[in-house]
Amino acid sequence: MDRNFDKYARELVETGRILYDLGMVPATSGNFSARVADDCFAITVSGRHKGRMTTDDIMQVNAQGQSLDNRRPSAETGLHMQIYQRFPKVCVILHPHSLYATLLSRQVNEEVVLADYELLKAFPDIDTHEYRLKVPVFDNDQNIARLAQKVDAYMDSNEPIHGYLIRGHGFYTWGETMEAALRHVEAFEFLFKCELMMRGGVQA
Amino acid sequence: MDRNFDKYARELVETGRILYDLGMVPATSGNFSARVADDCFAITVSGRHKGRMTTDDIMQVNAQGQSLDNRRPSAETGLHMQIYQRFPKVCVILHPHSLYATLLSRQVNEEVVLADYELLKAFPDIDTHEYRLKVPVFDNDQNIARLAQKVDAYMDSNEPIHGYLIRGHGFYTWGETMEAALRHVEAFEFLFKCELMMRGGVQA
Amino acid sequence: MDRNFDKYARELVETGRILYDLGMVPATSGNFSARVADDCFAITVSGRHKGRMTTDDIMQVNAQGQSLDNRRPSAETGLHMQIYQRFPKVCVILHPHSLYATLLSRQVNEEVVLADYELLKAFPDIDTHEYRLKVPVFDNDQNIARLAQKVDAYMDSNEPIHGYLIRGHGFYTWGETMEAALRHVEAFEFLFKCELMMRGGVQA
Amino acid sequence: MDRNFDKYARELVETGRILYDLGMVPATSGNFSARVADDCFAITVSGRHKGRMTTDDIMQVNAQGQSLDNRRPSAETGLHMQIYQRFPKVCVILHPHSLYATLLSRQVNEEVVLADYELLKAFPDIDTHEYRLKVPVFDNDQNIARLAQKVDAYMDSNEPIHGYLIRGHGFYTWGETMEAALRHVEAFEFLFKCELMMRGGVQA
Repeated sequence: MDRNFDKYARELVETGRILYDLGMVPATSGNFSARVADDCFAITVSGRHKGRMTTDDIMQVNAQGQSLDNRRPSAETGLHMQIYQRFPKVCVILHPHSLYATLLSRQVNEEVVLADYELLKAFPDIDTHEYRLKVPVFDNDQNIARLAQKVDAYMDSNEPIHGYLIRGHGFYTWGETMEAALRHVEAFEFLFKCELMMRGGVQA
Repeated sequence: MDRNFDKYARELVETGRILYDLGMVPATSGNFSARVADDCFAITVSGRHKGRMTTDDIMQVNAQGQSLDNRRPSAETGLHMQIYQRFPKVCVILHPHSLYATLLSRQVNEEVVLADYELLKAFPDIDTHEYRLKVPVFDNDQNIARLAQKVDAYMDSNEPIHGYLIRGHGFYTWGETMEAALRHVEAFEFLFKCELMMRGGVQA
Repeated sequence: MDRNFDKYARELVETGRILYDLGMVPATSGNFSARVADDCFAITVSGRHKGRMTTDDIMQVNAQGQSLDNRRPSAETGLHMQIYQRFPKVCVILHPHSLYATLLSRQVNEEVVLADYELLKAFPDIDTHEYRLKVPVFDNDQNIARLAQKVDAYMDSNEPIHGYLIRGHGFYTWGETMEAALRHVEAFEFLFKCELMMRGGVQA
Repeated sequence: MDRNFDKYARELVETGRILYDLGMVPATSGNFSARVADDCFAITVSGRHKGRMTTDDIMQVNAQGQSLDNRRPSAETGLHMQIYQRFPKVCVILHPHSLYATLLSRQVNEEVVLADYELLKAFPDIDTHEYRLKVPVFDNDQNIARLAQKVDAYMDSNEPIHGYLIRGHGFYTWGETMEAALRHVEAFEFLFKCELMMRGGVQA
């Protein structure tokens, strides 16, 4: 298990650097995690700058999101655990806090529908730009348990789902590997920015 | 031939890094190729992240676009082959998937006309900003053979052509050397972004 | 004291590089400082490029903002001193000169109100996105003593305050550590850009 | 002289890298020069990529802009010579080809007036944001001698001048040192982008 944790810790540090360079985790926003074993997950320590981490900024929690090493995990650990529980094959979850996702989440009501983009094929089992990918937008909530419940209820009747937005608060996406999760982040960022521009209601 | 392949493989890896840093190949989008010999072409392996490649991510296909090394080339290999067949002097083809090209391709109908830009002189045989450069926009199509045929038919009656857009899907451009092809990418990206802004219909 | 000065000088140089890479201190704009001791402050020398400094570009002033080493500190040293005097725990002050802050400061009249952003939690004692953070905008003034007085008068009746804008001239923010001050810079930059876009009156 | 040429050649290469990283010399656009001696100037060789130069891409011309080493200087060498002749203290001239300058030059008629920006103080002898800096816009012309003459005529009656725009073609600015010229580039880029956004007629 330790070797697995060390590998993921290094990958999460590197992923933080990549996403910071892309402008997607300003200040200390964002959080990332990985499934290390059945009851052990690597996750970013609360309040750290995600672009300038070392492996000391990655800690361990169990499947209930409780600290296994006396440090405090991200306040949003519960959202990660909901995803791991629902999707047994998911091994990495990334929550960037990008400007375009933030703005788009304040422009739309309940969901964004992404269509006619070749880049949709970056997501699993989508093999044509004609696919219509729905991305739900949840209202922000400091009560994470309550928010996780809403996400869970949505997933009961709306799969497949590859990510979601929280209003004024970035987005969540995931994958079976670090590479897949990062691919989904880059694809969503591109598509959210396109969508924001297509709507024309917001400028920059 | 091998030495030529190695040289191009290294150049394609480096080009991928440059274009990723410019934000032009998000997720695993984009694909690149080079003419190694009469019946041998170097091309990116399907599904690889173009900003983080090694030479292992570059493979060989013949003039029919068939794999020479048992790996799967980009789904769009047929578009590359159409260009190599038509233009014997072209040695490098680059297909970036930039946000501005994607948005512009969804704003215009059949073609973009670029005029009154000094940067037009970055293309072969254009020596004044007064030139009017036409760039066709083709509808996206997952049937690559059919799309390649449309491109070919367009070229029958519309040369010279230095690149084209696919709707919601970035652009293709090429050159006699890697340097020339990269110059055309940078020039098109600049001009497409200008054009998008000049139209004012899209913001951000 | 010297060891403390050296540490801060190195941190200010590194901070300059970070903020320049983020596009926030173009030309020779911006200035930064740190509290070294009760009557000694490290501050950027006047007119230096903040993205390409060495520790030689950091000098010492006393609590009145007077040079302790015969070099000329930034013209805006008085604004730094006002902040240090009012907030005894503040150890670092950063004044970036970003494009989005500049534009926003020309769009609004007297204050910007930031609300419904998760990133508000980057500031001290804010634990919900429902907080409404007021950021005053002061008219630019080449008479720094007079401007410092206006800022001081505003603070008399408007705490807590985490930063302010000067019209056409970037923003000031601060923190108890370099890490905190940088976090506030990144958070304000994100929020100012969001706000500028939400207003839609300015584009690009 | 040789030592002076070598120093400037290295600085011009480094300046090219900086401006390319800022997105200001796409494709092979832009050109740079420095006064090496009374009748010797260092200037970029025609057609080179300004972000990936070595000192081999810098050549020598005399005060008439004629090659001193059998290589072909930038097509716009005549514009550089006009500036050196008029301003004996100017030692460095930079011509970036930025997107924002290009777009702004197509939006305005004869001149841009920059006012109420603190960053105006980046230019010589401007000590307040209340200054109104005029920047003329000249129509693009492939006849460089004719264009240089127009610039010269404008300068006869409109000093001080710190730079000018060519329509659809970026801007020229200069300084007594490389550091000053680069400062003017960064200041103009910021101000042109602000101005473009303030006008709102163009979006991105």
